[in-house]
Amino acid sequence: MLNTNTISMHQKLETLLSEIRSADRSLAVAAQDHLDDLTKPKGSLGCLEDIARSYVVATGRIKPVLERKKICCFAGDHGVAAEGVSAFPPEVTPQMVYNMLNGGAAINVLSRHAGAELSVVDVGVNHDFPDLPGLLRRKVRYGSRNISSGPAMSEDEAIQALMAGAELASEAALSGFHLLGTGEMGIANTTSAAALFAVLLAIPVETITGRGTGIDDERLKHKISVIRKAIEVNAASLSTPLGTLAALGGYEIAAIAGFVLGAASCRVPVVIDGFISTAGAVVAMLLSPAVADYLFFSHLSGEQGHRIVMEKLARKPILDLDLRLGEGTGGALAMQIIEAAVNVYNEMQTFSSAGVSGKNEA
Amino acid sequence: MLNTNTISMHQKLETLLSEIRSADRSLAVAAQDHLDDLTKPKGSLGCLEDIARSYVVATGRIKPVLERKKICCFAGDHGVAAEGVSAFPPEVTPQMVYNMLNGGAAINVLSRHAGAELSVVDVGVNHDFPDLPGLLRRKVRYGSRNISSGPAMSEDEAIQALMAGAELASEAALSGFHLLGTGEMGIANTTSAAALFAVLLAIPVETITGRGTGIDDERLKHKISVIRKAIEVNAASLSTPLGTLAALGGYEIAAIAGFVLGAASCRVPVVIDGFISTAGAVVAMLLSPAVADYLFFSHLSGEQGHRIVMEKLARKPILDLDLRLGEGTGGALAMQIIEAAVNVYNEMQTFSSAGVSGKNEA
Repeated sequence: MLNTNTISMHQKLETLLSEIRSADRSLAVAAQDHLDDLTKPKGSLGCLEDIARSYVVATGRIKPVLERKKICCFAGDHGVAAEGVSAFPPEVTPQMVYNMLNGGAAINVLSRHAGAELSVVDVGVNHDFPDLPGLLRRKVRYGSRNISSGPAMSEDEAIQALMAGAELASEAALSGFHLLGTGEMGIANTTSAAALFAVLLAIPVETITGRGTGIDDERLKHKISVIRKAIEVNAASLSTPLGTLAALGGYEIAAIAGFVLGAASCRVPVVIDGFISTAGAVVAMLLSPAVADYLFFSHLSGEQGHRIVMEKLARKPILDLDLRLGEGTGGALAMQIIEAAVNVYNEMQTFSSAGVSGKNEA
Repeated sequence: MLNTNTISMHQKLETLLSEIRSADRSLAVAAQDHLDDLTKPKGSLGCLEDIARSYVVATGRIKPVLERKKICCFAGDHGVAAEGVSAFPPEVTPQMVYNMLNGGAAINVLSRHAGAELSVVDVGVNHDFPDLPGLLRRKVRYGSRNISSGPAMSEDEAIQALMAGAELASEAALSGFHLLGTGEMGIANTTSAAALFAVLLAIPVETITGRGTGIDDERLKHKISVIRKAIEVNAASLSTPLGTLAALGGYEIAAIAGFVLGAASCRVPVVIDGFISTAGAVVAMLLSPAVADYLFFSHLSGEQGHRIVMEKLARKPILDLDLRLGEGTGGALAMQIIEAAVNVYNEMQTFSSAGVSGKNEA
């Protein structure tokens, strides 16, 4: 029997999903016409042209604006860390949150370099943080439960984390940010993400499971068996995307799914970082296929399995730099390429205005 | 019989070559030790770590500096354009130079976005330019000769263009630029570049020849036959890298080769743009193999044949964005990734300073 709180959380999610519309893809034609009129051979800027066109379509603006960028790095602990699936101990999750708040992590360097504002969001870290600048406290619980013995979260908790992400995206859109980026921190979260991909995209567990932060062969075997067990134990909950998210995901992955949904509902493009962020994006795409129009996949992760995920989604990531750190690092780098693409679109001269001759007639 | 001018040009080149030293690769170990101490799993920043390490090795500074960046875009006309090998008429070369000087070309947008200063260098355009801000006049001749009926340049002319490039790199190094980038503009220059690759790297003409700015099947066939003829006609001159450059190259390609040599002689890393710039870099590498230590290959060009060149050189370009514009556009984009990598190296906290736990002992 559903209690009133449950009904209300599910209603919140339904309301959010009802606000997401497909982008107007017909704008792609006008955008390409403009690109073809710029002083360069047609199509010669390759992926930059694809990116600029997608940005126009997502924002619905034929004269797009890209000035303010924001990355939200969601942090959460994972009960499954107790199974020894990670190379690092779980206390690293809060330690790395402090490191980010002190400006010393890779995502600090790279978001600074990209000119993006960074917020770190505690949605499920097993630690009490004081009020600190740059930290947003949206904790749902002190870490997820161990997926190898039951569901990571209740559906209510999953929706609570998801709505926290969605609200942050909406707030960012209202504050005038033009491009958002996802990031995450959570020891053992490649285990959750791999389990989600295995179920949601029907990828064999041994194919999708990788070395995360750097485990050896033996621990990799163990990680695979833990994921298999998690899928078995939670079998009854895996018939819907939300049920699967709650059973196998984590608070930061749920928040990323919500962040993507919230961004799409505001027609603000969002850059997806790597392996874990893609798991959140896949959940969002299954909850609302229209979000696909608002996504940029930033990079092909060095984490085994990301390539097959990208193939299943039929998307080519912008970068391929063998990154496997997460935090939003690949997203921050890709933001610069997206900005370059939009600048090309906005700032180049046309053939006629520059007095440059067109192509020879053959 | 050699005249004194010839001796002096060859001597200048020999002097330049004698100033180039291999980088101290032992610094790579100390650089990687530092990278391994930063708050991230070892190796998890993939290519960013490779780039940072290479930058340390090239500059010889274990605490590297990357602030000021400069791109030189070399322009030259090609006599072989008369054979109808390009989709665009030759007057586009000076028109695009004016477009660059007016700030309206793709390279203007992208060098601005990268925070790089841009100079346009006339080394062989078939046009008299007035003095204009941003233009450097180093014209050797009003365009190269038609390679399908003889050598593009005399060896003296090739060295003159090469030394112009080398001097610009040295001047930039002396002025305090930390990272240089190559670019080019020259209608029909993919024809020259393909001919150079065919000879210098022993790649079949039909494999290396691509569509340049966008020619159709018929014109591509014609372009292949023109390149075959050029190689045949110039056969006697193709036994040395310099002879091959003079016979099949162009002024901007020679200048790029010199720019690379000059940068290497000053231990300043240089970012190689796409297909044409790589031809200049290959000439430089054959004249002085030690320059390899100072090169970053920015992107895999959409121009057919660039992939096989990169494979022959055993180098993985930083980006793969299907760009085929030249001008230095891919180099400008890659400069941002290189800067990001150096910033990560310089600005991240170490495990001990950040109070983050290390890896579990298995």
